[in-house]
Amino acid sequence: MTEHLPIFELAQSDPVLDKATFKTQEAALRTALLSAQYQQLAQGRQSLLIVVAGIDGAGKGATINLLNEWMDPRHIRTLAFDEPDAVDRERPPMWRYWNALPPKGKTGIVFGSWYALLVREAARKRPRPERIERLAMAIRRFEAMLAAEGVHLLKLWFHLSRSAQADRLQRLLASERTSWQVTPNDHKVYKKYDRLCLGGSASIGLTDRAHARWHIIPSADDNLRSIQTAERVLEALKSRPARVQPEPAVAPPPRVAVEDRLKVNVVEELDKDEYDTQIALWQGRLARAVRSDAFKQKSLVLAFEGQDAAGKGGAIRRIANALDARQYDIHQIAAPTAEELSRPYLWRFWHRLPRHGRVGIFDRSWYGRVLVERVEQFAAPSAWRRAYEEINDFETQLAANNVIVVKFWLAIDAQEQLTRFQAREHSPFKRFKITPEDWRNRDKWDAYARAANEMFARTDQPDAPWHVIAANDKRHARLAVLKHTVLALEHAI
Amino acid sequence: MTEHLPIFELAQSDPVLDKATFKTQEAALRTALLSAQYQQLAQGRQSLLIVVAGIDGAGKGATINLLNEWMDPRHIRTLAFDEPDAVDRERPPMWRYWNALPPKGKTGIVFGSWYALLVREAARKRPRPERIERLAMAIRRFEAMLAAEGVHLLKLWFHLSRSAQADRLQRLLASERTSWQVTPNDHKVYKKYDRLCLGGSASIGLTDRAHARWHIIPSADDNLRSIQTAERVLEALKSRPARVQPEPAVAPPPRVAVEDRLKVNVVEELDKDEYDTQIALWQGRLARAVRSDAFKQKSLVLAFEGQDAAGKGGAIRRIANALDARQYDIHQIAAPTAEELSRPYLWRFWHRLPRHGRVGIFDRSWYGRVLVERVEQFAAPSAWRRAYEEINDFETQLAANNVIVVKFWLAIDAQEQLTRFQAREHSPFKRFKITPEDWRNRDKWDAYARAANEMFARTDQPDAPWHVIAANDKRHARLAVLKHTVLALEHAI
Repeated sequence: MTEHLPIFELAQSDPVLDKATFKTQEAALRTALLSAQYQQLAQGRQSLLIVVAGIDGAGKGATINLLNEWMDPRHIRTLAFDEPDAVDRERPPMWRYWNALPPKGKTGIVFGSWYALLVREAARKRPRPERIERLAMAIRRFEAMLAAEGVHLLKLWFHLSRSAQADRLQRLLASERTSWQVTPNDHKVYKKYDRLCLGGSASIGLTDRAHARWHIIPSADDNLRSIQTAERVLEALKSRPARVQPEPAVAPPPRVAVEDRLKVNVVEELDKDEYDTQIALWQGRLARAVRSDAFKQKSLVLAFEGQDAAGKGGAIRRIANALDARQYDIHQIAAPTAEELSRPYLWRFWHRLPRHGRVGIFDRSWYGRVLVERVEQFAAPSAWRRAYEEINDFETQLAANNVIVVKFWLAIDAQEQLTRFQAREHSPFKRFKITPEDWRNRDKWDAYARAANEMFARTDQPDAPWHVIAANDKRHARLAVLKHTVLALEHAI
Repeated sequence: MTEHLPIFELAQSDPVLDKATFKTQEAALRTALLSAQYQQLAQGRQSLLIVVAGIDGAGKGATINLLNEWMDPRHIRTLAFDEPDAVDRERPPMWRYWNALPPKGKTGIVFGSWYALLVREAARKRPRPERIERLAMAIRRFEAMLAAEGVHLLKLWFHLSRSAQADRLQRLLASERTSWQVTPNDHKVYKKYDRLCLGGSASIGLTDRAHARWHIIPSADDNLRSIQTAERVLEALKSRPARVQPEPAVAPPPRVAVEDRLKVNVVEELDKDEYDTQIALWQGRLARAVRSDAFKQKSLVLAFEGQDAAGKGGAIRRIANALDARQYDIHQIAAPTAEELSRPYLWRFWHRLPRHGRVGIFDRSWYGRVLVERVEQFAAPSAWRRAYEEINDFETQLAANNVIVVKFWLAIDAQEQLTRFQAREHSPFKRFKITPEDWRNRDKWDAYARAANEMFARTDQPDAPWHVIAANDKRHARLAVLKHTVLALEHAI
């Protein structure tokens, strides 16, 4: 199977660095590292994420200590991942990496990164080329997104030759002082040496991009490993990040034929009694579905978008009424906080993903990027244009990992919005819902409509569909939202 | 057993409110609630925490919807707790409540609160009075701390009579539209009505304090329940919080005889070879202990304090060297962020508690409150004075829940500090460790020493001991820290 893997030679010799040279270089490097670190911190424009991978026993653990000693440890976060635990397993695999992303200005050191699965697959007796390519492509897309969002990626592969690895084991085992450093895993690793090199080679060959470069660190000699690691980190801190090389789309090409989906009309009116009955019956179905055993292995994510005053809050309350308070969260998505702004923009939504058996309701959502941020020019055109694919990736990961995703656009027309705005202004307890900003947004009605229609065209995926709901009639809208939610849920469980 | 419980009558009648009165009051209340909510937000001095408890079926769920509809939901957080999950169970029971505390300015609605255990105990066939009193006292201490830290507590008990509860069940079951609202739990609750009232009565009677008042909300009638809930919330938002009534200490009276523990000297010097051997051997013991099966059910928390330049970082690295990167976190504790300042001060430490099988290393700790915050007058005297007991409570909860706590003070003398400061200033890569603030702190040497000695006297607990380490000799200090850590760990597993 190896012919499918890129040919990437890992050296079989182990260079060394003498102590005197080390001492000289150490002093200069530490000084330079600190100053570069403070500069990154002061600028606050990007974070540095150091992916640490390689052969076990090559000194990955020592690298944490090195960087924490040579740099200012207050601005470094070690992000070390083991096998996913029970909490991780209730979310898509990338969830724990997203959650841990350090803010701009800081440095993160990632152990047990998103390469673990790829290395493992490539190190199988019979690696599956399609799976390797799929894993590598997912990584490339993730890293391209990180880079575009101001995360500087530095990827280090710690390498030593098979004989150096054998020597190290023998040396450690020879003394009681050091034998504890050898774990059962080290013996396993030694046996699998060639296959792990193949895994590394695949990781490097398939994911080396200008914006996410791999570097091989020769690791048999502690001095050389320390100096080369520090040099790579220093380079990364001092260089401007490379221009992101875009990754072609995985999803079927987006529907570029943008149609106007906002002109929706209700044919029949619902009288109050009929509405009350219907709402209660569908709420009953919703309550039964979320109490079902099948839902204990699933999560439900509902995203609500729509013009101001379209009735999102009222529709959400009709859903919430059918649920146990311990089973759902309503996330009111407003302007991002400073903490949120200092991470890639999807971070705050990954962060809020519900566990199994729970419902996450988003009152406005990750679509803000291609709606308000586009129209108000908070996001650069390059940023919101790439967001469609990033959002599709996000939702595909949710759908592929037991998260049911349903998206609603509540559509009212301009006249109805005006009526509701005026009613709000005249009600002492609804006045808070209307601000000068709402009136300004209203002036941009057409720009928002264009953005919404392009959004539908580019992000209406089979496993995360958009439902455009006619919402001039509140009863109709609330009932329709409830029905779509129930049907999606019943279909999935 | 009931004679041990306070006598607290819960009404057997169910008052109602007519619709016209409701409508009039609703409009006024909603307007007033919004304006009070915005005022709380603008002032940002305190958060409001609404504890929702009472008989199931009395409308606790409806209360979330009510408050989210009548107030601005963007500034409300619903904190609904079910049985503790696997993650919760790896920390002390209060951990999840601490984690969820809303920031100042915001309102939190707590379901399944810290009263769950107390109600359950009081509702047993044979309640255990000592356990009830212990649970109630822990709650009183927790709530007194919250109140002192700017959390306004409002506790609502939703009550209805046994016959009203029976009527409600019958009414809901009579129609397909509403029968889904009845869960198996509702039937159980009905059978246990009297005992749950007893549980409520105990909760209220034993934990009603001026700074954490209980209010009974008559809940058989939706209109009346809504209005009374809103009135209580409005009152709480508008009133200044009551003065906190201190709760007597649970721990044995603190040792008030403050002795000078900072005068520590090393008798013998360690030569380099002997030191290297010893360090390696003790690191081996540490590595074996944390890999043991017994440690999979425990966590280890290490707190490091000491004068500036006492060598905390070096001692910590000697610990970290023996651990797997995936097994520990080093928390560099600096000045609190805005997010941390808006919560009770122990929040950021609760937040960082390690899971089972993991080590949390705190480079400076929660003792900042009684050290730097005391000496630099960042905390009012009343705040740092009560902190000793709050910290003892915190550590007692850790120790009682499988967390091994070891605390180190690295003690150098003033001359040694001066030597190290000067050495730092002359090293290009250590200069970052020394700031004008360090020199200013040095001028307050005696004040810090007084604070440290009082801290030892008041917080040296058997299950969370202080080790004052002679640190003029770095080798001695590093080895001593390692030994104490290993011995504490080996003793506990």
